[in-house]
Amino acid sequence: MKLLDHIGAAEDLRKLPREQLPRLARELREFIIEVVSVKEGHLGASLGVVELTIALHYVFNTPEDRLVWDVGHQAYGHKILTGRRERFHTIRQKGGLSGFPKRDESLYDPFGTGHSSTSLSALLGMALAARQKGNHDRQHIAVIGDASIASGMAFEALNHAGETDANLLIILNDNAIGIDPSVGALKHYLTEVKKGDVSRENLFECLNIRYSGPVDGHDLPVLLGELEKLKGQPGPRLLHLVTTKGKGLRQAEEDQVVYHAPGRFDRLTGELVRREAVPGQGPKYQDVFGHTLVELAGQNPDIVGITAAMPTGSSMKYLMEAYPERAFDVGIAEQHAVTLAAGMATEGLLPFCAIYSTFLQRAYDQVIHDVALQNLPVVFCLDRAGLVGQDGPTHHGVFDIAYLRCVPNMALIAPMDNVELRNALYTVQLGVGGPVAIRYPRGSSREPNWQRPFEPIPWGEARTLTAGGRIAVLSLGPLGQTVAGVIPKTRDPEAFGHYDLRFAKPLDEALLARLGTTCERLVTVEDSALAGGVGSAVLECLSRLGISIPVTCLGISDNFVPHGTPEALYRDQGLDGEGLLNQLNELLDE
Amino acid sequence: MKLLDHIGAAEDLRKLPREQLPRLARELREFIIEVVSVKEGHLGASLGVVELTIALHYVFNTPEDRLVWDVGHQAYGHKILTGRRERFHTIRQKGGLSGFPKRDESLYDPFGTGHSSTSLSALLGMALAARQKGNHDRQHIAVIGDASIASGMAFEALNHAGETDANLLIILNDNAIGIDPSVGALKHYLTEVKKGDVSRENLFECLNIRYSGPVDGHDLPVLLGELEKLKGQPGPRLLHLVTTKGKGLRQAEEDQVVYHAPGRFDRLTGELVRREAVPGQGPKYQDVFGHTLVELAGQNPDIVGITAAMPTGSSMKYLMEAYPERAFDVGIAEQHAVTLAAGMATEGLLPFCAIYSTFLQRAYDQVIHDVALQNLPVVFCLDRAGLVGQDGPTHHGVFDIAYLRCVPNMALIAPMDNVELRNALYTVQLGVGGPVAIRYPRGSSREPNWQRPFEPIPWGEARTLTAGGRIAVLSLGPLGQTVAGVIPKTRDPEAFGHYDLRFAKPLDEALLARLGTTCERLVTVEDSALAGGVGSAVLECLSRLGISIPVTCLGISDNFVPHGTPEALYRDQGLDGEGLLNQLNELLDE
Repeated sequence: MKLLDHIGAAEDLRKLPREQLPRLARELREFIIEVVSVKEGHLGASLGVVELTIALHYVFNTPEDRLVWDVGHQAYGHKILTGRRERFHTIRQKGGLSGFPKRDESLYDPFGTGHSSTSLSALLGMALAARQKGNHDRQHIAVIGDASIASGMAFEALNHAGETDANLLIILNDNAIGIDPSVGALKHYLTEVKKGDVSRENLFECLNIRYSGPVDGHDLPVLLGELEKLKGQPGPRLLHLVTTKGKGLRQAEEDQVVYHAPGRFDRLTGELVRREAVPGQGPKYQDVFGHTLVELAGQNPDIVGITAAMPTGSSMKYLMEAYPERAFDVGIAEQHAVTLAAGMATEGLLPFCAIYSTFLQRAYDQVIHDVALQNLPVVFCLDRAGLVGQDGPTHHGVFDIAYLRCVPNMALIAPMDNVELRNALYTVQLGVGGPVAIRYPRGSSREPNWQRPFEPIPWGEARTLTAGGRIAVLSLGPLGQTVAGVIPKTRDPEAFGHYDLRFAKPLDEALLARLGTTCERLVTVEDSALAGGVGSAVLECLSRLGISIPVTCLGISDNFVPHGTPEALYRDQGLDGEGLLNQLNELLDE
Repeated sequence: MKLLDHIGAAEDLRKLPREQLPRLARELREFIIEVVSVKEGHLGASLGVVELTIALHYVFNTPEDRLVWDVGHQAYGHKILTGRRERFHTIRQKGGLSGFPKRDESLYDPFGTGHSSTSLSALLGMALAARQKGNHDRQHIAVIGDASIASGMAFEALNHAGETDANLLIILNDNAIGIDPSVGALKHYLTEVKKGDVSRENLFECLNIRYSGPVDGHDLPVLLGELEKLKGQPGPRLLHLVTTKGKGLRQAEEDQVVYHAPGRFDRLTGELVRREAVPGQGPKYQDVFGHTLVELAGQNPDIVGITAAMPTGSSMKYLMEAYPERAFDVGIAEQHAVTLAAGMATEGLLPFCAIYSTFLQRAYDQVIHDVALQNLPVVFCLDRAGLVGQDGPTHHGVFDIAYLRCVPNMALIAPMDNVELRNALYTVQLGVGGPVAIRYPRGSSREPNWQRPFEPIPWGEARTLTAGGRIAVLSLGPLGQTVAGVIPKTRDPEAFGHYDLRFAKPLDEALLARLGTTCERLVTVEDSALAGGVGSAVLECLSRLGISIPVTCLGISDNFVPHGTPEALYRDQGLDGEGLLNQLNELLDE
């Protein structure tokens, strides 16, 4: 019988004698590996905090004491120990556990995470609220990595916390890596601290945060002792832990980037399970971006690349390898990334700033104020646009069309496939004279023969895929492939014309004027929020042109979309083949 | 003859013998005071950097060397010394000089500013670009205040800069005040540094930024010496200057908050020129907010207030005075402010988070990811919505409807007048169960008798102001007052009905369904961007309801709006009384 099987909630853990905790740690690590090796998910981060997770729940009175896991990749062990062991095999599946801490899921998750560096602000809010409500005993603990604490909003929280007496314990989980290796001056500073080179003053103490450490985060007795000591101290304090991402699985320790979220692997040997090649499948969109950028950079010396801590995820790593002096990883610092790009653009460079759609929300003001207002040529490459799948609502990239198309000077392209993405990248570096965003989805593209000679895309022009018909379907982005597939299956294929808008902005007004006066109905299809999306832009354009015609807008409804496979999520939105087929057939009767 | 009259460009300044520079400083200070006392504008910040401005242009080879003024309030002296003396009296007037550095205006302004804390990122981008382009001699200088450097994005830039060898000189202009006094642990740290209490290690040196100072920023010889020394040093370095905001005008030194932008004043005595009370004018919208919040806080103990460095500008100061333990100024940290509010909301508090419309762009991701996704009751009070006037395109609050209404769970109210604002504030604290934003304009409201008994606003319901008519005008926000004024002046007042939408989200669908099927045309009127605005929301709603009716959308066109009086700017958009009258009359003929 395993100890783990007896842990139904954190209080069961607290009943164990402390000499049994190392055994529990082994069991917990094995269980995480066992499940994630089959079900997939984030591995390395949770393996790195097994001892910490046990120690925190052992020393603190969760969930009455509040515990927030920054980003949340590392919270699998936390989930398992807090009443979710039996459901843990459902992680990241539709209807199953979220891959991130989530308020709806458990009282032990007082704050949902997913994007980095939010934990300190949220925790300080809780601590100030506790004081306000007269609760002076409650403990507030955040676990934040060295990559996350280097992001601006974490600094803002430290700066505020340091002038309060809030009861706040910050665990700095220093493993020198985020998803890719950490960067920045702070990382170097922490490295020196770990070497013992910095003795007296301390960066955190400068901000009036009491510092202790560095401490080995895998040494349970030391960890328990430190936490018990810190539990009794008042005010904001920080414990600097040194851990190893992937701890306990050799390959995960050795190749931390791959084993961040390795897909399926052999739980004993750690060996990755190779995915079968799917016939007719092309490369990932991110790789189409990454390789094309290298190709273009070879021709255009003004091109530089910027990533905010996603060299691997964005495939900016290819440019970093090919032209190391022309590619910049700035860490989890989207705000800085965008204004850095603006500064470079003023001096004649052409920055390709690759930021996931959902993370560009972090730099919205910089896009408006520093780039668009000055009409600077910066190319925003928005990977993970649309529904991303298992990462869920924190990561879906569905608001970008709404939040970018209201910005003057901004152009916005959503290629339908990998060849169009390649040509869009080629086109924008020919000289657009202002900011452009190119949005493209997570996952694999369909055309294996994508590396064709470049062809420029006519600016602001849609593509006619099927002319004629009384109903014009205007699709934007990769759902155009689904539309093209279902029109022949409708009851009356001849009734439909199909146009790939390509540009959400500028819209092809001439086409809309023509279709709006010759068709019976327009249908827009997009993989983004209907509120403010490209369908909305089409409606605005028709209104401006004084054209009244029925328009049906298909896209993501006004709700946060949960996690699940992209296929299942698009089905729920009526945007899979069957859903689109049914909706097009229904329109034939109107 | 004044020395100043001979300075047509910075190179003229560099020809002066250095013993004449103190005289030039006196003249420059007098000239700033002379013009600003009559023309209005930002005063204190520029007075505080007179010596610095002269020293920088004297030591460095501007505009070949790049000089970026963070925020830009303090750049008046810079403008005067760089070829804009004769046009300086046009500052902040329509067609005149901008109140902020602006690329279009001068080669000496290599990067436009307006929002805080962008300078370091932009400058680093320039410095890396210079290296990339093979220019190793160019100097890059940013002037940033102690309030601005505490914002997250400045930290992100420092963290990146510290691991580069970029040629970067950061002047930390430490006057212990932004617009209101600085807050935060960093401010306390800098105070200790100034006292000489911190000797060896240094926060900036921890980040690998070479630190020097503190130095008296009003001592020209010392300043020149320091800058000359630093000019020869390689890599990122920071000079800590101590200055006095408002230096040289007694009242401006003594009351730094008021003299940040004092309006008209006597240039000799410094005394403020009292504005005449305008008959029929009500209080500023911000004060309606501030006083009502205090009133509500007296009734509802869960209410707390949060401001990001704008106690005075947002009128949060009233809550800070009445309930100091329930009001939080977090500094220029909008991201932190929003997630702090989210954390408080999880513990049962009801935070009123007051952030200008344009500055909430800084916290867009936090609004989505931390507040809306978790459906937490946070009230966003968006002051300065619409066209703000003289501050210009960096400060207009015209994108908020587009960027907020695409966010699920978010409600969005735009009161038509001060009584409606008051009732909106009352209504949302009765319990909405999720996030709400209330947007209201800069400046004075019209109803002097606004402090009436509270009345709840029916959720999601528009107000009928004039029923009937074949053309229904749907206005959102204060332009409704203009619409109400001009309908009686149209050629056929009976043709128009007028409805105050009140909610941009949720829209009053029942009303739209009724009007859409009984009227000949709908007209929407808003003081925000047409792209994604409330007119767009009305179009989406009608499309969803399957109603085809001509809709005319009036609002801000898809361009950045320049600076000028609000009246002139609304006139340019056709949204003043005359413009709206003409457009309504034209619709009578359609």
